[in-house]
Amino acid sequence: MAQKPSIPKGTRDFNPEEVAKRNYIFNTIKSKFERFGFMPIETPSFENSDTLMGKYGDEGDRLIFKILNSGDYLKKADQKAYDEKDSNKLTSSISEKALRYDLTVPFARYVVQHQNEIEFPFKRYQMQPVWRADRPQKGRFREFYQCDADVVGSNSLWQEVELVQLYDEVFTALKLVGATIKINNRKILSGIAEVIGASDKLIDFTVALDKLDKIGEEKVKEEMLCKGISPEGIAKLQPLFSLSGDFGTQVESLTSILSTSEEGKKGIEELQFINTAISELGLKSAILQLDVTLARGLNYYTGAIFEVAAPKVAMGSVGGGGRYDDLTGIFGMKDVSGVGISFGLDRIYLVIEELDLFPETITKSTEVLFINFGETEALYALKAINILRDKGVNAELYPDNAKMKKQMNYANKRNIPFVVIVGEKEVENNTFALKNMSTGEQESVNLNQLTDIFS
Amino acid sequence: MAQKPSIPKGTRDFNPEEVAKRNYIFNTIKSKFERFGFMPIETPSFENSDTLMGKYGDEGDRLIFKILNSGDYLKKADQKAYDEKDSNKLTSSISEKALRYDLTVPFARYVVQHQNEIEFPFKRYQMQPVWRADRPQKGRFREFYQCDADVVGSNSLWQEVELVQLYDEVFTALKLVGATIKINNRKILSGIAEVIGASDKLIDFTVALDKLDKIGEEKVKEEMLCKGISPEGIAKLQPLFSLSGDFGTQVESLTSILSTSEEGKKGIEELQFINTAISELGLKSAILQLDVTLARGLNYYTGAIFEVAAPKVAMGSVGGGGRYDDLTGIFGMKDVSGVGISFGLDRIYLVIEELDLFPETITKSTEVLFINFGETEALYALKAINILRDKGVNAELYPDNAKMKKQMNYANKRNIPFVVIVGEKEVENNTFALKNMSTGEQESVNLNQLTDIFS
Repeated sequence: MAQKPSIPKGTRDFNPEEVAKRNYIFNTIKSKFERFGFMPIETPSFENSDTLMGKYGDEGDRLIFKILNSGDYLKKADQKAYDEKDSNKLTSSISEKALRYDLTVPFARYVVQHQNEIEFPFKRYQMQPVWRADRPQKGRFREFYQCDADVVGSNSLWQEVELVQLYDEVFTALKLVGATIKINNRKILSGIAEVIGASDKLIDFTVALDKLDKIGEEKVKEEMLCKGISPEGIAKLQPLFSLSGDFGTQVESLTSILSTSEEGKKGIEELQFINTAISELGLKSAILQLDVTLARGLNYYTGAIFEVAAPKVAMGSVGGGGRYDDLTGIFGMKDVSGVGISFGLDRIYLVIEELDLFPETITKSTEVLFINFGETEALYALKAINILRDKGVNAELYPDNAKMKKQMNYANKRNIPFVVIVGEKEVENNTFALKNMSTGEQESVNLNQLTDIFS
Repeated sequence: MAQKPSIPKGTRDFNPEEVAKRNYIFNTIKSKFERFGFMPIETPSFENSDTLMGKYGDEGDRLIFKILNSGDYLKKADQKAYDEKDSNKLTSSISEKALRYDLTVPFARYVVQHQNEIEFPFKRYQMQPVWRADRPQKGRFREFYQCDADVVGSNSLWQEVELVQLYDEVFTALKLVGATIKINNRKILSGIAEVIGASDKLIDFTVALDKLDKIGEEKVKEEMLCKGISPEGIAKLQPLFSLSGDFGTQVESLTSILSTSEEGKKGIEELQFINTAISELGLKSAILQLDVTLARGLNYYTGAIFEVAAPKVAMGSVGGGGRYDDLTGIFGMKDVSGVGISFGLDRIYLVIEELDLFPETITKSTEVLFINFGETEALYALKAINILRDKGVNAELYPDNAKMKKQMNYANKRNIPFVVIVGEKEVENNTFALKNMSTGEQESVNLNQLTDIFS
């Protein structure tokens, strides 16, 4: 046991500075969520396996962390799977619980389970960790937080409008001025697929289209051809590849492409509603941008699709979301439409770090350290500390009567801006020697002066 | 899948009101932790199994939730254990990770792993969930939060003094006025065991003594006799059973009992130091009380032992802690003394609920709801909502143009104190009809008046 301990790959320890920075982001998002009327809920870290399994596709099922049953778990093991030593088949008989994979499925479960206590439309937010047995790599972890805001129980497009505003508010508050909020609509993608005669290949079509940025027009066309989309269909896509101009101009081009698709036209109508409202209401610093290549978990979304790109820094999306018309259907509660967005905490953290936008104040915890010169002095110091703390000042006493240098060093390393030195003389005269650690200046003050300085 | 979904036994969903109340407690504790100079860290939800296993005794090992390895986990299964179908023996070969059982062992692991980055004495706090496969019962859950504050790297008794003050501060801030902070010292228990010739039966002795409150003097003596403590030894305990009076008087009696034990005398000295300092410094509302029967995880503690009882409500301890001289020894880092306390969130919640001491303001999230009468009115409303939100007011628009009654009902159920009604007339006159939901009064105001009312 003498070897240095470690933590599982893909997980992280957070030191005080990192916790403070993360909380700054959490608290900013949280206060904006509440400003918009969203209310917090929390769900358990693990769910019954049958709540989670089968909801994220085969790949998702594989990435869900399963919890081994307690006690003599092999007693209930599926004998056939055991004899065959088939891990996959055995799992469900020795594991009944699994760690949350995202916040969406637990939210759906929550809504169905508590439907009689909930007032619809239900605006909830949730900020909790999720776990995925993914291969860890730069910026991808096995434990990470999701921050989601969703409204369920109404299909009003005003919610899409408000979610765009919410993104703008949060990123502006985090000083990430100029984020790009990309928007698309599933109905537009379906409409295009319909128009080019590829309705049955919607997923293949969107997966290919989604790569336009990365691999370019020719490669996208090749991939579509490979997937069995006809050359005539692909030819009809041409205007899509040269879509340009502002929101209005792009919508016009789309309108001509989609003139024969009812669903496509509905999608355009929705986009226009949102864009018009946002133009009227204005955004603080973000830009709303139409991106017809945007697909994100398409299986899932039925209307608007959102994705946010951070300003100035090349970093995948820092947020995403959309409209889903049947979230709770998987738990037998039909026709509950919902729309939601989420924030990617880890990437937002990296962007703020890279742009050096964390406020300096968030990591200064203790404002003043009292040096310890022995019992009498320490008691004298603690009496003053009591008064400072009552006034809301974060203050502490160095616990040991250690060498002065060691104590000053501690204040330095901890970034504590002020130090109070109380020796025999100060106790006698009822004073305090206050030292400013950045200027090195030192002055003798009485208790009133001391408390005035800090409060 | 049409059956109503549920959550694993021993786990809980928290609705918005519960989250707000829990956060009120968390935030109160957190702000006092920081007031005293403690800094937050966070550790992963799961650790490598060998970090946790063997640290909590056999019973603890059994109660740790193990995570099944991903992929074809049976490939690496211990063949002998597999053939014997021995769950216990098989576990370590199919599970390498386990959910955190408490915050103390992960903290010890953190200190050792990051020893070169840490400035000692290290004052850290940590508030995170832990998991135990315990049999769920009233007030005992399989997932619950722990809130710990510890200092490691110094054996100064000023820390014990400050931790008593910290308990007092937190419970006073939570309006739980008059909490009892019980204190004892491992050295006193060892000293007594030594004096009665039962040093080798320290655990049996303290386990029996710990039950004094519940089963009474006679039964305690019987149990000690059963465990092989001599009648002569037990006779020497007599003064202990009739210990009474204030802290000073009790310490006097103890001094006479412990006159022949060096360790016991050291324990008394420590107690007296803490009690004298606390008398000098004063407590806001809590009472510091000597309790020689107090043992709590004795294997673990080496000096002071703390436990807190809530005022007015019969409810097990709402906090506990103590001094441990070798926390990090299990990970090969010797001679790091530490002292810490923890707060029992769930019980504190129940006590505050029972005494009806949750502030009313914490659960009011949205302050004003705008009624939705259609597109034009909604856009007009959202413009005003924008301005209110900028002024820090939590405001929302009802998303649908639903029946007035339904919208008012929503405001009522959500406890939203004000509603703004904007119909055709209001849009025309640039006014807002503001309704106070508790008095029923309604007035017509302009935008400036509206924002003045809320900010």
